[in-house]
Amino acid sequence: MKGIRQLAEHLDISIGTVSRALNGKPDVNEETRKRVLEAAMSLGYVANQSGRALRKGSTGVIGFMIQTGQAITGHGDTFFMSVFDGVQSVLARHKLDLVALLCSSEEDPLDYLKRVVARGFADGIILSATQRHDPRLEMLAKRKVPFITLGRSLTDVGQPWIDLDFEGMAETSIERLVARGHRRIAVTRPHDDINLGYVFVDRCREVLARHGLELAEEHIFRSLPNEAGGYRIARDLLACEQRPTAILLINEALATGLYRGLNEAGLQPGRDIAVIGRRSPHSHFLSPRLSVYDLSLRDLGIALGETLLATMPAYAGSYAERPARMLWPMTFAPGESDGEAPADRG
Amino acid sequence: MKGIRQLAEHLDISIGTVSRALNGKPDVNEETRKRVLEAAMSLGYVANQSGRALRKGSTGVIGFMIQTGQAITGHGDTFFMSVFDGVQSVLARHKLDLVALLCSSEEDPLDYLKRVVARGFADGIILSATQRHDPRLEMLAKRKVPFITLGRSLTDVGQPWIDLDFEGMAETSIERLVARGHRRIAVTRPHDDINLGYVFVDRCREVLARHGLELAEEHIFRSLPNEAGGYRIARDLLACEQRPTAILLINEALATGLYRGLNEAGLQPGRDIAVIGRRSPHSHFLSPRLSVYDLSLRDLGIALGETLLATMPAYAGSYAERPARMLWPMTFAPGESDGEAPADRG
Repeated sequence: MKGIRQLAEHLDISIGTVSRALNGKPDVNEETRKRVLEAAMSLGYVANQSGRALRKGSTGVIGFMIQTGQAITGHGDTFFMSVFDGVQSVLARHKLDLVALLCSSEEDPLDYLKRVVARGFADGIILSATQRHDPRLEMLAKRKVPFITLGRSLTDVGQPWIDLDFEGMAETSIERLVARGHRRIAVTRPHDDINLGYVFVDRCREVLARHGLELAEEHIFRSLPNEAGGYRIARDLLACEQRPTAILLINEALATGLYRGLNEAGLQPGRDIAVIGRRSPHSHFLSPRLSVYDLSLRDLGIALGETLLATMPAYAGSYAERPARMLWPMTFAPGESDGEAPADRG
Repeated sequence: MKGIRQLAEHLDISIGTVSRALNGKPDVNEETRKRVLEAAMSLGYVANQSGRALRKGSTGVIGFMIQTGQAITGHGDTFFMSVFDGVQSVLARHKLDLVALLCSSEEDPLDYLKRVVARGFADGIILSATQRHDPRLEMLAKRKVPFITLGRSLTDVGQPWIDLDFEGMAETSIERLVARGHRRIAVTRPHDDINLGYVFVDRCREVLARHGLELAEEHIFRSLPNEAGGYRIARDLLACEQRPTAILLINEALATGLYRGLNEAGLQPGRDIAVIGRRSPHSHFLSPRLSVYDLSLRDLGIALGETLLATMPAYAGSYAERPARMLWPMTFAPGESDGEAPADRG
């Protein structure tokens, strides 16, 4: 498929003339017009292919962009597949299909997304791994591609978003741990500049400050979202000058590695150090039972799908009541891993 | 974008005439020709949109079709994400992108794939969940879409395939268990008509017959590829008239549920019943340690990517040495779960 530029070059006519000919403007002579139309046909010219497909919503496809790569998905995925199920159940009502746009962690997400948009095969896009500053949002807004972000960003172009309530998790976890006598509470944050890391750590710091406590720099652990990351946190935690008595895990894959690392050092979660994490399909195999924050990933997917469609004229009527932005609550399920602070138990 | 049929209807001219006009054949009068070309432009007609994109490889996208749905991916995915990583590493060499084509288990895979092809956004396709009889293969062959299957099928259109060596797994597992004194060996197969179930069960039966043993119908367990499926197998196994002394698990997600079900009944894998399964990121949390078949999912993805590209003229030169069809070996890693048959230990 060729664009107008290639067509103009092929005919050796200006782009303006080609454009006027294609659009049936009267100030183009008939011979030129005919030449342009014939060349357009024979070269397979498509007017504004991607732009039109996106505006008219003619592809029937919604893209869900996720990050892949060994460090991230090396142990599989326990989050997105279930979210996809929820999105699909919404799209199926409208005969729309979902494709997962797999952006390798080795590639710049903006470059990747630009290419996706240029290829024009999606009517709308769901973005995940929203960064603190995220140029993807401006690019999509500029190209008028309907989209929604899973997560917020300081970059705000007025797009709809749904974000897991990491502030709520920070608030209730810290309050709970402080009430149980913990004074040195560690937190984790993602390896990259994903926005949720800032939101979470900032709120943890605020709640601690309310109790006259500080969040020490050495008690903030950056890690990859996988088991090896959790194992490494255990090692770093044991090496702290002032060892924390509790830790909050922001990612659901960390707990298994952390447990292993602690066990190897003879420490037992719940007795020697309090651990609060997030539910994964495998967290219930941990012993002692992990105290977790939980959410319905499928319901989250349904909300993402409906909120995105609410921004697309062809579907908006069905979803008028959907709020454009919302914090998605997580529920706390206490286990055996977040007991009293060791010092307080005497 | 309209096709030739819509164009003909709009103009109230036969498809044949429209086609001849579009292709510049001389037996169309000039007035008709002009009308056709102008209508084609104004309606956004694209000649053989999907067919052409696929033939010329102009989309820059490779699609990987997988089945989704709560029963299948409800607990996440521990297989495809790693395979995707491998495929992507190949595609990146050629500036091609990978998208995951998510086919809901509630939809007919053929209908889904037809729609994907009609939408024409992939240069080539990787199919998984290859069925015993799989009409998707004939459809793609007919439309001349380059593709490869992960798995074989009785439907054979000469396409390239890579299949995990389930025969090899059947062969070595049964031989090992028979040598350890097992006479009543159970096997599992998928809930649907995926080809690997036939291949695996048939070979198990053959190897048993070599030793004068039979595979009883009540010892063949069909199950969904998830933990709940494994739990249910435990229940059904305990209800057998003749309880098997060993079981082979074809899917990597079954073991956790099976272990739980056996434990609840006071049975210990390895001591009371031999279990052989497949490695998952979580199988090493099982106690006693599961004896598993293992493979590099990333390497499998690399092979799938290269073998597919070998069939596409634009890329074939780089991959001439790739065999078009191969069984992908799995390696056995013995654990503690497949001991001697209880009867033999006296």
